[in-house]
Amino acid sequence: MSANFSFQCLACCSKTKARAGVFFTPHGPVETPRFMPVGTLANVKTVTPAQLKDTGAQMVLSNTYHLHLQPGEGIVAGGGGLHKFMGWNGPMLTDSGGFQVFSLSEMRKITEEGVTFRSPHDGQIIKLTPERSIEIQNTLGADVIMAFDECPPYPATRQEVEAATERTYRWLERCIAAHKRSDQALFGIVQGGVYLDLRSQAALALAELDLPGYAIGGVSVGEPPELVAQIVQNTAPLLPPEKPRYLMGVGTYKEMAIAIASGVDVFDCVIPTRWARHGTAIVQGERWNLKNAKFREDFAPLDETCTCYACQNFSRAYISHLVRSQEILAYTLLSIHNITELIRFTQRIREAILSDRFATEFAHWLD
Amino acid sequence: MSANFSFQCLACCSKTKARAGVFFTPHGPVETPRFMPVGTLANVKTVTPAQLKDTGAQMVLSNTYHLHLQPGEGIVAGGGGLHKFMGWNGPMLTDSGGFQVFSLSEMRKITEEGVTFRSPHDGQIIKLTPERSIEIQNTLGADVIMAFDECPPYPATRQEVEAATERTYRWLERCIAAHKRSDQALFGIVQGGVYLDLRSQAALALAELDLPGYAIGGVSVGEPPELVAQIVQNTAPLLPPEKPRYLMGVGTYKEMAIAIASGVDVFDCVIPTRWARHGTAIVQGERWNLKNAKFREDFAPLDETCTCYACQNFSRAYISHLVRSQEILAYTLLSIHNITELIRFTQRIREAILSDRFATEFAHWLD
Repeated sequence: MSANFSFQCLACCSKTKARAGVFFTPHGPVETPRFMPVGTLANVKTVTPAQLKDTGAQMVLSNTYHLHLQPGEGIVAGGGGLHKFMGWNGPMLTDSGGFQVFSLSEMRKITEEGVTFRSPHDGQIIKLTPERSIEIQNTLGADVIMAFDECPPYPATRQEVEAATERTYRWLERCIAAHKRSDQALFGIVQGGVYLDLRSQAALALAELDLPGYAIGGVSVGEPPELVAQIVQNTAPLLPPEKPRYLMGVGTYKEMAIAIASGVDVFDCVIPTRWARHGTAIVQGERWNLKNAKFREDFAPLDETCTCYACQNFSRAYISHLVRSQEILAYTLLSIHNITELIRFTQRIREAILSDRFATEFAHWLD
Repeated sequence: MSANFSFQCLACCSKTKARAGVFFTPHGPVETPRFMPVGTLANVKTVTPAQLKDTGAQMVLSNTYHLHLQPGEGIVAGGGGLHKFMGWNGPMLTDSGGFQVFSLSEMRKITEEGVTFRSPHDGQIIKLTPERSIEIQNTLGADVIMAFDECPPYPATRQEVEAATERTYRWLERCIAAHKRSDQALFGIVQGGVYLDLRSQAALALAELDLPGYAIGGVSVGEPPELVAQIVQNTAPLLPPEKPRYLMGVGTYKEMAIAIASGVDVFDCVIPTRWARHGTAIVQGERWNLKNAKFREDFAPLDETCTCYACQNFSRAYISHLVRSQEILAYTLLSIHNITELIRFTQRIREAILSDRFATEFAHWLD
């Protein structure tokens, strides 16, 4: 691993594969396990960097696909790179654009060279290859950058998934060759769909490459939750223990708890901000619709145990009023709370692992 | 004036009628002249109270009409009153609903008793009278409450305006009789349309009532800017000098400067937040559309002389990117900047008055 990055394991759970650690990056440490908020277009929707810091956020994710289309990586670099451009001085990660090209773009065409698609902004044809994705990510300047992968849909035949997984490996080799900055860590992504043997093969092959970190991708794309758990339980333990493990796109309590018990360290998910914009709060594992009549005259904070700005200053009745009035401030307050809550959940798990209470205290999430 | 309120004049301009003072309220002082941000539905749109405090905001306005419809004044009172409900511990003012009933509601019917209109929320018929407006404002609990007035449209005949002005006076007497809280100051509103003699008569009649403060209403309702200036120059000097003077709904540099030169102390306007939501910044008296191509690669802050959170942390290019992407954070950052800018303008005028430099330093706004 580059001198700029290291992962230190502080404690291992005696009953599960969970571990508490620290992932060191050029922009500071990430205490693991930890949830990462998503800042798609170089901002976490409705939240300022100052507010984001107060949620306990350490590493923040941003999206290569979106930033390439708007404002373009050249403008981000002109503004001093992603950290300075968006005012976030902590650790950052960019995904490769692979998932978005497959899930969002129109008229895409996949060849061995890469993916061609039509820009939803201006209709022009754009080509993304492993080399181009890494070049864009090198220009954006996040601490962690992700390999360009082919994410097969669910359902897909074994043959299709096998082909995508093998291509993902070949593309990873090209990403490694193209990567130019020692102050950025390139993580590989394990694909393999719901086929556990393909996942295992991919994980073992990637582990050989001695990358600074590894991700499990292509989960939560429509498959049943039991399969997500199986994939993670099968795959995470095969990744090198001395490197951070990142489960992409997962952010529910149960999925995170199970993944942590399998040895996963970091997570990202749009759930806390997306639900916020629908007027939904995440409270102690429940999902509350603030438009519900029972909140109209409920003057308690969202969560009395929560130290976030929203819970310290406002009542459920007030936030319910803002949601009913479609006031944008509602989405800011709910985003602040929801992000704080998911980070707090992973922080509590971290503390439990450090004193080896995880398997008992979080048993109800691990069934 | 109630013991809870007082206005202290600290300095008078030697060449104009401008004055610098302090208006004391139960929730703290308001240094005048000063711009007040508008928090229609118990929040300044897209801005948290913590961010609002950092703009230099002292007194904040909220709307009786809107709050009566949603969430209802009973819920605001249940939440501890307007200050606690919305998390703003500084001075607050509620308007009476008069202006909104006339400008926003459908199927309104005006009688001597009051105004009947159809709720845009649920279609039910609502009656607002001077007594009811004061009762609602007593329940909401702002520091300053406004008399329920009839605001004639522009244009309107002299006869129509005369009738509305006289009714406004009779309604004011009923407001005074209905008002019940000594910790709230009831301000009277001078109407009279563009008829300067009607304005003068109204101002002199209101002055007799020895109210804790006075407003000039019914301006900027469509009449040419020269007429606004004439109305204010004619009317403000007739109001008692020992009481604060509030020009309602005005927030452009030139209009505020001219009004201050006529002896006005406080202003409110939705411009800074409304323009922000259209991607527009107010910079040194100019109006900038951040979608303009020239901002795409402009890495300077909006205003290098501005100390607001947006200017201290982000570039024009970044905010332009957020506006192009329709990211809500753009509206938050622009609202913070625009409010800060208008408050800063009135603060700079205040400092100029205190050292008697106003008439010379702000001469270009006073033509």
